[in-house]
Amino acid sequence: MEKLLVEPFFVMKVLERAKELEKEGKEVIHLEIGEPDLPVPERVKERAKEFLSKFEQKYTESTGIYPLKEAIAHYYEKTYGVKVEPERVVITPGSSPGLLALLKVVRERVGEISYPDPGYPCYKNVLKFLNLKGRGVPIYPEEEFKVKAERVETHALIVNSPSNPTGIIYSKEELKALSEKAFLISDEIYHGLVYDERAPSALEVSNNCAVVNGFSKFFLMTGWRLGWMVVPKELLPDITAILQNTVISPPTLSQYAALACFEEEVLEELSSNAEIFRKRRDVLLKGLKELGFKIPAEPKGAFYIYADASRFTDDSFKFAFEVLEKTAVAITPGRDFGENQTEKFVRFSFCTSVEKIEEALERLRGFLA
Amino acid sequence: MEKLLVEPFFVMKVLERAKELEKEGKEVIHLEIGEPDLPVPERVKERAKEFLSKFEQKYTESTGIYPLKEAIAHYYEKTYGVKVEPERVVITPGSSPGLLALLKVVRERVGEISYPDPGYPCYKNVLKFLNLKGRGVPIYPEEEFKVKAERVETHALIVNSPSNPTGIIYSKEELKALSEKAFLISDEIYHGLVYDERAPSALEVSNNCAVVNGFSKFFLMTGWRLGWMVVPKELLPDITAILQNTVISPPTLSQYAALACFEEEVLEELSSNAEIFRKRRDVLLKGLKELGFKIPAEPKGAFYIYADASRFTDDSFKFAFEVLEKTAVAITPGRDFGENQTEKFVRFSFCTSVEKIEEALERLRGFLA
Repeated sequence: MEKLLVEPFFVMKVLERAKELEKEGKEVIHLEIGEPDLPVPERVKERAKEFLSKFEQKYTESTGIYPLKEAIAHYYEKTYGVKVEPERVVITPGSSPGLLALLKVVRERVGEISYPDPGYPCYKNVLKFLNLKGRGVPIYPEEEFKVKAERVETHALIVNSPSNPTGIIYSKEELKALSEKAFLISDEIYHGLVYDERAPSALEVSNNCAVVNGFSKFFLMTGWRLGWMVVPKELLPDITAILQNTVISPPTLSQYAALACFEEEVLEELSSNAEIFRKRRDVLLKGLKELGFKIPAEPKGAFYIYADASRFTDDSFKFAFEVLEKTAVAITPGRDFGENQTEKFVRFSFCTSVEKIEEALERLRGFLA
Repeated sequence: MEKLLVEPFFVMKVLERAKELEKEGKEVIHLEIGEPDLPVPERVKERAKEFLSKFEQKYTESTGIYPLKEAIAHYYEKTYGVKVEPERVVITPGSSPGLLALLKVVRERVGEISYPDPGYPCYKNVLKFLNLKGRGVPIYPEEEFKVKAERVETHALIVNSPSNPTGIIYSKEELKALSEKAFLISDEIYHGLVYDERAPSALEVSNNCAVVNGFSKFFLMTGWRLGWMVVPKELLPDITAILQNTVISPPTLSQYAALACFEEEVLEELSSNAEIFRKRRDVLLKGLKELGFKIPAEPKGAFYIYADASRFTDDSFKFAFEVLEKTAVAITPGRDFGENQTEKFVRFSFCTSVEKIEEALERLRGFLA
């Protein structure tokens, strides 16, 4: 059993080794994992405790509770100025199981799906898990790592904006061009974490598209396992039946607690976090450039910097593990994100404090000198 | 889009209609849904509140936290006298996503999978979702609705004991015979809810098998979305990579709260619930027989009675909806469970009080007279 049925995340291998080093007493700085380090707003936790005291956590509807669908629909109106019927909102136990159902339905109902290479590894892996053919579309540093409509040859396309691993943002015009070329699946999980410009939603340019989002990035609720999608009505019966069979329903407590996310003050608190991430980005970006990394696309959102390490290595996979061993700074090798020039790149996340980022840069300086 | 990619649960159609009737002011008695109505032990809720006060809910390992794996391993030793290494325990966000990963891996690594017909619909549906061929094995009332080893022609087999929809229990000898014929996937989600005899685990007869279980039946934690599997070590790398890609990790709070399930007093409280369900079964069983339903296999476990309604109908699907309209008693049509004689059968669950069960029987008496 040498080759696995789907590829694991290489970042997990890095994390595993990092944990071993920590057991040996090393103080590892984690720039590998894409998990925000800030605490969930108190109101969300209070709401969870209230629910625990008053109610039993029963199964909910497979696509989630209606009040949360309404709150999300309202959020779209307020944030993007688009009207979304609550019925089109599908609540999922994290965005991953939603993506699984969605990719299946779009592949079977619409056609082959393209995904960016480099890009979030799940797109390719989930299609492989489903025994469905997908197609990587190479994206290039010279083109800001953006999928160009003219290169899309499939009926459907998934893009991620702000993007993992590059942090680039598609403009409204770009999303429109893509949505006119193919059925667009827009992974908007990093929305709200933007530093220079707003990130438009695909829903602003098309109603015949599907949006994936969730509570794990901007809303900080990683371990609560809650996501959502907005899908065309025609896809709802398939998606609902698949979710019944594959997850039954999303976690009940998380759904009720998440209602608090949309209270005015909570949204303000969450929005103010973008400033924290912006500062971290600025420090890390400046530092990496000084060290000699090339950053062909500077991140406008999300919490990653995709850095060209070819000045130091022609094998970024080996390089990432060397850096870990020598400096106890954990970073993600490009290989996690595809095949297109990924041996040149490594991803730095900035989900840790400015102090730790500065310390990591200092350690890297010693190693690369 | 007439035919869906996977079949929805027909019980959900019943539930939908039942909810409409409730909106019209009807008092529906729910004998359709397999969700225990008893409250989760206070200790579990307390533990959840403690965690909420003290910690952030971060992602955990994709296969769950080690202390919970240890607690489950210990539970196997105590309950079944079998030693299970904690590493073989995989924690999942409910048993459904675990089953999804497991069926994929067993199908690809071991071979075609048989499932009982009638049986829990997910087995067939999930294989279909994965574009993988499965094979229904007809099971017969004359043979207590049990899969006979000599009829299994595939490399792998899934059975459910105690079973949904029939409540039958496989003996140790029967499990052994099945495990010698094919790689056995033993769905033991109703373990602990047994009324006349114990339900042996497949792990008592074989180490080369996979067990699926969870916290939604005996442990009552439906909306908490937590399950587990015990799998052979060789399958762990595939299963781990699939879970990383399809769910990331199980809900963190539910995992820490579930640790309380294995405290001595909590286990005692949970075990005493079996007596409540036994009483309900006795009342419902006697009543249904008096009404003229044939019960070819009386349930020894789980919380369902699979009743032959052929005295009243040759279309149990239509019958279930008629019963709902005329009596406001919700039951599940056999069609949910497969194709083999299912038009004769309906499933009654006993997840409601003896009083309500008696009231439902009274209403049925009027309707069937």
